[in-house]
Order: sequence, then C-alpha cells, then structure tokens
Amino acid sequence: MDTPLDRLTEQFRRLPGIGIKTARKLAYYMVQEPQEKVNEFIHALQEAKQKMCFCSQCFNLSSQDPCPICSDRKRDRSMICVVETPQDVLAVERSGNYGGLYHVLQGALSPLDGIGADNLRIKELLQRLENTEIKEVIIATDPDVEGEATALYLARLLKPVPIRVTRIARGLPAGGDLEYADEATLAGAVANRLEM
Amino acid sequence: MDTPLDRLTEQFRRLPGIGIKTARKLAYYMVQEPQEKVNEFIHALQEAKQKMCFCSQCFNLSSQDPCPICSDRKRDRSMICVVETPQDVLAVERSGNYGGLYHVLQGALSPLDGIGADNLRIKELLQRLENTEIKEVIIATDPDVEGEATALYLARLLKPVPIRVTRIARGLPAGGDLEYADEATLAGAVANRLEM
Repeated sequence: MDTPLDRLTEQFRRLPGIGIKTARKLAYYMVQEPQEKVNEFIHALQEAKQKMCFCSQCFNLSSQDPCPICSDRKRDRSMICVVETPQDVLAVERSGNYGGLYHVLQGALSPLDGIGADNLRIKELLQRLENTEIKEVIIATDPDVEGEATALYLARLLKPVPIRVTRIARGLPAGGDLEYADEATLAGAVANRLEM
Repeated sequence: MDTPLDRLTEQFRRLPGIGIKTARKLAYYMVQEPQEKVNEFIHALQEAKQKMCFCSQCFNLSSQDPCPICSDRKRDRSMICVVETPQDVLAVERSGNYGGLYHVLQGALSPLDGIGADNLRIKELLQRLENTEIKEVIIATDPDVEGEATALYLARLLKPVPIRVTRIARGLPAGGDLEYADEATLAGAVANRLEM
C-alpha cells in the first residue's frame, strides 16, 4: 500500500537522525495540521532554500554575500578559524570568545566516502591566506578520525606559509567527570597539561 | 539575527518531538540539499496534505473515502476497534490478528486541555452502532490517564446498547522482565491472570 502518506513518511525518513517511527509521526502530524500551517512550513522551506547561499569568502551559509561575519569591520581580520560545517561556525560563535573570521571547509577528509582535498574548500583557504593580513589559522575541525586527518593535512600544507597554525585544545569538557572520561580524552588532557 | 534559515529552524521546531538542536540540524541539512530533492520533499508534503482525508465512516486517515479497511468486504463487520489516532490503527494492523473494523476517536478525553466528548468522534460511533450489524466494540485507547478515562466514559455510554464492550488487556509486554515491570503493570497482570 503506497499512499501519499507513505511517500511523505519516506521523505522525512531521508532526513539525518530521523528513523522510521519518527518519520511516520511527523508525516501523520503534518497531514493533520491546518492547511495554512502546512503552507507556512513550505514557504519557510522554499524561502530558506532560495535565499541562503554560501559566502564567497568564508563559505558559511548566509543570506548575504559576503556574510555578516566577513563584512563586519569590527572583527579581528588577522585570524581565521577553520571549521567543517556552517553549524560549527554557530557553535564557535555561541561560545562567545572568538572575534576573528571563519573558513568553512564544507566537510572533512574521508577517503572511504570518496571525499578528498579537492572536495573541500582548501584551495580557497590558501587563496585567502595569500591575499590578506592573516596572522593565525586556528584549525577547529572535529576531534574525530576525519577531523584529525583534515587538521594534520592542513597543518602540513600550511607549513611553508609564514603564518601561525594552531589546533583547538583537546581535554576534559567543562562540568565533566574524570572518572567517566574516556581514555583518549584523559590521555589528551594529561599530555596537554598547562602551568598554573 | 532573523534569517530565512532561522525561520525554517523555527518551523521544524514546532513538529512533535523535535528540539532546537534537531530542528537546526534539519534546517541546515535541507538548505544544503540539491534543489530537486527539496522540491521532491515539498511535492510529497503538498500531495499528502491534499489527498489524505478522514474516512467518513471510521475517521481514519486515508486517500480514499471510505477507506480501504471500511470498504474491504472480507473484514469482519461485526467488530469495531475504537482507537485514539490513525497511528493506532496502523499499530493494531501491524499486530496482525485483528480482522474487524476501526473507529478513530481523533483524541482522548482531557479536560485540562479542553478536550471533551464533543471534540471526539463519539457521536459518530454511536450512529455506527445503531445502523449496522455490530456485535462487539473493543476499546483500544491508550493505557494512560486520558485513555482510561475515555474507555470508562465509552463503557458507561454503551451500557444501554445491547453490544459486547471489551477493553484490550493490560499486562506484561512480550519479552518483558518481571523484575523491571512497574507496579501498575504488574498489579494489572496479576489481577487479569488467566486459567492455563
């Protein structure tokens, strides 16, 4: 039985982190909503898809080009924080103590998924480093296998460039518990210990 | 900063069971999908909203009226299983050993939320019982406060009608563990014990 409802369920199912039960719940919910609510949803989706683009400088998602961060003259233009995704920019911004620029790679190196250096915005990063007054590049890719591989690759690539290249620290999360920290995190926290 | 992306996030946020983080993830995912995928999603949503209606007999969601279950001549027309939502029909159908008809109340009694008997499809249930060869009504509302209240209300309402009225059993779930069963479930399972 392939009804329009099944097809809508299938569409929700394709979204990240949505299993079959949640997809079904969302589809049933949507068709029972008033027509104007469904129209509002569709309008928001169409508008976002139409108006959001990638900033031609940092490749963050934005409704302007250049994006508000790249065009903000009050930000520190000597630092670039390199992240994997637009969501990561949001996360660093929320942390509230970084005032520099960003560069969104739009992914991480993952040979198994066929993602190589050419699929990321690495060439564009190198171009930015040539043209501007950048003094430091902070590599803030995820602390997982792909993110670390990407960080190492970038660090080697940037070695000849006379710019400070740093990596965000690994260690215990704020509010964390030593007893429940995994081995890799704790080993990193000990190795990266600081003078008090 | 209220961008089209924030507005889309807000729309996802309104869906049941979707928190702010999931909403943001879905919105970012959607705007980064190719245009034709977004169009497919919108088309499925519009089609489902347009074509799905409530069956005029059982009030289940369906793309036909009467729905395939109500119009299936092979089903046992002497039994009606009363449930709260269309999803519940799906759940009973999946369990695979009920071959009768359904009646979807479209909710449960909940005075605190302002949902009284007039907001449910109870009048329509009584009408169906007058006109047909129904011999048994199985009340399969949820085993929670609202569902039990609705079941009791229906049982009293149907007392004068010469029809068998039953309630689905409460007991231990299949594959369950006595040790971890909550008190209400275990008490119900003991009270409803059966001869072997």
